[in-house]
Amino acid sequence: MRTIAIAAVTLDGKIALDPDHFPDWTSAEDKVFMRALLDTADVVVVGHNTFKTAKEPLSKRNCIVLTGSVASTERKGDKLLYVNPGTTDLKAILEPYATVAILGGAKTYSYFLQHNLLHELYLTIEPVVFGRGISLFEHLEGSPTHFKLLSMRKLNEDGTVLLHYSLAAAK
Amino acid sequence: MRTIAIAAVTLDGKIALDPDHFPDWTSAEDKVFMRALLDTADVVVVGHNTFKTAKEPLSKRNCIVLTGSVASTERKGDKLLYVNPGTTDLKAILEPYATVAILGGAKTYSYFLQHNLLHELYLTIEPVVFGRGISLFEHLEGSPTHFKLLSMRKLNEDGTVLLHYSLAAAK
Repeated sequence: MRTIAIAAVTLDGKIALDPDHFPDWTSAEDKVFMRALLDTADVVVVGHNTFKTAKEPLSKRNCIVLTGSVASTERKGDKLLYVNPGTTDLKAILEPYATVAILGGAKTYSYFLQHNLLHELYLTIEPVVFGRGISLFEHLEGSPTHFKLLSMRKLNEDGTVLLHYSLAAAK
Repeated sequence: MRTIAIAAVTLDGKIALDPDHFPDWTSAEDKVFMRALLDTADVVVVGHNTFKTAKEPLSKRNCIVLTGSVASTERKGDKLLYVNPGTTDLKAILEPYATVAILGGAKTYSYFLQHNLLHELYLTIEPVVFGRGISLFEHLEGSPTHFKLLSMRKLNEDGTVLLHYSLAAAK
């Protein structure tokens, strides 16, 4: 099982202006990349807020929604499972999948990082500054986490940059 | 007069864990780059907190410190001028300089962006996540600000990335 977080951030590390901000502010080239990567994933994991803002595009994908609104797990459809990570062993649920894509938001990215369940990160840096809003990760405690850059490339003329990282060995 | 902000951020867009966090968490290669760029600047602008954390390395440079602690401007030494940007025309003070380097912190970067005084940005992205702390910009209102990527390069084996942007024409 390999988990890959996919995130687009501003130059100031924001993923959204607020929790209801639909993630459509990113470049067309990032959307193309994101869809291609999701096509390679066996399951997509999102938080409940992110799911609500992207329900339609996610409806055709095998999807796990992290939420406190169910007691443990609840099947909501053929391709849709709600999981409460506070009461359920999320790792055991993900174990059967070869490739797990993590689509956010901040709480979900943070959950995976904090529980040592994050293996790779694709970070798209859009050439824009929000100056406020929601950061990629939130409320993490302890030491900084080190990554290693695997590749970098420019996605378009404006200068959207795609960076691919893996978790580094502890320093 | 050309103003250039120089900043090192984590993957989650943080410049420090807290206001007293000495900016020594960056890579050796970023420090070399930063010093070389500061050597090309005619004056360095910093906020009072950043100045306090980097007083010694800044002592040999021509330096303007932004602070609310002086009424308008106050000369503190041959190379050191305190300026209250709330009461003083900062642009007029900077006008005689060909190249102005802006070293932070968040409040100072934000001041320049908000007052249309920012021309270029060198952003070093260190492959580390803080998961909390101070973002590059803070409390900005209004529309997002668009930039244009001028160049990108990898500074070391771990994958520290240096991105160079200019302000884009309004979209």
